[in-house]
Amino acid sequence: MIDALERIVDVAGLLTGTDIGPRYLNARGHGVAGTPLCVLRPKSTAEVSEILKLCHARGQAIVPQGGMSGLVGGGVPLGGEVVLSLERMIKIEEFDADGRTLTVQAGVILQTAHEYCEARGFMLPLDLGARGSATMGGVISTNAGGVRVIRYGMMRESVLGLEVVLADGTIISSMNKMLKNNAGYDLKHMFIGSEGTLGLVTRAVCRLRAKPKSVNTAFAGIDKFDDVVAFLGHLESTLGGELGSFEVMWSSYDQFVRERCPSLRPPLNAGRGFYVLVETLGNDPSADVAKLESILAESMEKGLVADAAVAQSEQQRAAFWAIRENAGEGFRTLGPICSYDVSMPIRSMGQFGEHITQSISTAYPGATTLVLGHMGDGNLHVVAAVGLGTPAARKQVNDIVYGVIRDLGGSVSAEHGIGTEKKDYLSWSRTPEEIALMRTLKRALDPKGILNPGKVL
Amino acid sequence: MIDALERIVDVAGLLTGTDIGPRYLNARGHGVAGTPLCVLRPKSTAEVSEILKLCHARGQAIVPQGGMSGLVGGGVPLGGEVVLSLERMIKIEEFDADGRTLTVQAGVILQTAHEYCEARGFMLPLDLGARGSATMGGVISTNAGGVRVIRYGMMRESVLGLEVVLADGTIISSMNKMLKNNAGYDLKHMFIGSEGTLGLVTRAVCRLRAKPKSVNTAFAGIDKFDDVVAFLGHLESTLGGELGSFEVMWSSYDQFVRERCPSLRPPLNAGRGFYVLVETLGNDPSADVAKLESILAESMEKGLVADAAVAQSEQQRAAFWAIRENAGEGFRTLGPICSYDVSMPIRSMGQFGEHITQSISTAYPGATTLVLGHMGDGNLHVVAAVGLGTPAARKQVNDIVYGVIRDLGGSVSAEHGIGTEKKDYLSWSRTPEEIALMRTLKRALDPKGILNPGKVL
Repeated sequence: MIDALERIVDVAGLLTGTDIGPRYLNARGHGVAGTPLCVLRPKSTAEVSEILKLCHARGQAIVPQGGMSGLVGGGVPLGGEVVLSLERMIKIEEFDADGRTLTVQAGVILQTAHEYCEARGFMLPLDLGARGSATMGGVISTNAGGVRVIRYGMMRESVLGLEVVLADGTIISSMNKMLKNNAGYDLKHMFIGSEGTLGLVTRAVCRLRAKPKSVNTAFAGIDKFDDVVAFLGHLESTLGGELGSFEVMWSSYDQFVRERCPSLRPPLNAGRGFYVLVETLGNDPSADVAKLESILAESMEKGLVADAAVAQSEQQRAAFWAIRENAGEGFRTLGPICSYDVSMPIRSMGQFGEHITQSISTAYPGATTLVLGHMGDGNLHVVAAVGLGTPAARKQVNDIVYGVIRDLGGSVSAEHGIGTEKKDYLSWSRTPEEIALMRTLKRALDPKGILNPGKVL
Repeated sequence: MIDALERIVDVAGLLTGTDIGPRYLNARGHGVAGTPLCVLRPKSTAEVSEILKLCHARGQAIVPQGGMSGLVGGGVPLGGEVVLSLERMIKIEEFDADGRTLTVQAGVILQTAHEYCEARGFMLPLDLGARGSATMGGVISTNAGGVRVIRYGMMRESVLGLEVVLADGTIISSMNKMLKNNAGYDLKHMFIGSEGTLGLVTRAVCRLRAKPKSVNTAFAGIDKFDDVVAFLGHLESTLGGELGSFEVMWSSYDQFVRERCPSLRPPLNAGRGFYVLVETLGNDPSADVAKLESILAESMEKGLVADAAVAQSEQQRAAFWAIRENAGEGFRTLGPICSYDVSMPIRSMGQFGEHITQSISTAYPGATTLVLGHMGDGNLHVVAAVGLGTPAARKQVNDIVYGVIRDLGGSVSAEHGIGTEKKDYLSWSRTPEEIALMRTLKRALDPKGILNPGKVL
């Protein structure tokens, strides 16, 4: 097998034995890595196709890898697979200002694509914490989300065209550049978000947007959950397409930040039930900040919002976002943690937060349960520290959180995917009929089961 | 067969023989209808499922039907099929103001859904001329487009959850209500836009948006195609999320309207190379019209725009749109026409318009070729009248238009779908590998080929 693979890639394209560094085994600690047969680092779609033809003929399993920033073990080798890393396919192939598209190879780093577009007055909307390592192929294969979904949608909505290599090596080149194309089935959607189990993404055409001319950020303190929902509705109807982010932190998270994250400086006084980070993306720098201030003033008069601050500088804006995103120093003081990425109807979120906090505390007195997230998208993140990191304790907390999600008709994975880590809970969000149909698709596209086996299904 | 079907639906649910009215045979003249075995009008998903189980067991072909407003013959019976009309599944099941969702059965008329949402301060963004007859199931199954795609995307982007009945009667209920849900494959995308060939849509959860508080509409005359592209870029970067429509009419269309459509009143003088209808969707009624006027003034100073008018009343706004949408009186004076719905990269549109006009005139001296469309979406419509309506003449004009599209990497169907009418040209926009993958999907989901046979593939 190795001999045959050697004939496809160049010398730097094949790693075996101790040359296989921790990058390929999952340096972030998600999933339990086995030992792969080898690592391949092809430089072109043609090489990917040759590799797959060979593996298909021999029934050899493959794990595709991007930037290895996934959080559910989707790119982790389980043992014996060929790791196929797209890290050397890093060309930005075309930028079309008139059509507002960017054509990239799968290994281009998200941040590189961001910087390339921004220098030309455009924006690739998807943004997330791992932007410095996540690859375009990875964010497409996992349908990544992030902090601007309420305005621009998930990654899926920024993909116009896609090139994919199927299990048998067939190259499906659907590099569409148009917003509208109803010529037959829109095949790309099968591959977006299927975590490399149906085909390998090698190239893509992404939709760009005009870069907003002004970004304004506010922090608001709100006492009751119903008022958070009403405030979101008010912003949606007042700001329309300018509402970029609506991030909510429960009071438990605010307390935790004040106690455990000395480098973070909450801009408002403690004691509110909820803190909201609002960001607007506008095109009138002179008027936009005044608009946001007047909406906040009006919301305070109405009694919806109890307290608010608008960032007056880029530094202040970064400080607001740090409260939402950079609590790692605090998390490390909690001991073993269980973290979740769930979605549910917005109106159920208040009940969800109360319910899981109470259930976890009942099972584990003294536990810490933190709730926060992209509320505008129906997506919450939960961090629970119960003092134990044993499989039994993790399972018990999982069962509590996912049990409430099941009862609310929510999803056990809002944006991180299923990988290996959430496989046991897929059926808590999906019906047997849905899962059977997923299997039908998997069998139709990968009859030998060589693409990322053991993941998702 | 009829006896068995009779036991599934009520008395009004089964039509045979002369009871089968023209509605079910395609009253709009697209495609050539054969005689169906019968028409079924089920009232629930359970009935649809029972019908499909029976048809599947007996290998009986089915044609699903919505409002019969399609333009490519996708709902037309070819002969011997069971017509399955969703017209009696017309419940609006749930409206969720907090989550901004509307849950409907497939037979709900688009305009009914519009009115329901608007009365509650929300908007279902998809809009198109056939709004009074098109059904929700139909606009989902065909991934309809229309005049607001540049702002809100195709119908696909407004579908959060979907219920589908598979060929064997299995009910796939994926009635997701969240913007984010990455729990396994996102199955709904297979069924959106596949024209009833992979499963039948019975219910859906749609994403609503806040209703814009102000709508402003302008007409602009522009001399050169490059300036039309630059004007679009300027609007995108200045208006961002507020640009709702960007519709372009070539000078040949303007001339045609002035000569053949006495009820239409173009607001600008004749003689420009292109006329653009721009619509903004904003939230500040006091400032939005001034913003649009100042953008137009600035564009005229720069020399991008030669002439412009902003609608000063709802009546004037309707008159502007009528020029774009209501030229039917003129079309009827042209004799037999060939019409097209194609997409291509925006920068190729100027060349496309010139090329096809010249080629059609060379083949048919004296021919009329009108070009117009949703330029912001990469989508143009073409109406060509060559004096003949024979199959040979149609084929020749098709070959000219689709040949240019093939060379430009465009699509033979931007928004209307393939149905029967564009089947012969699918391979002009899709590679053999793409079409083979479509067939793989079709075989996996409908192995007996009973769902809308003869359509798309």
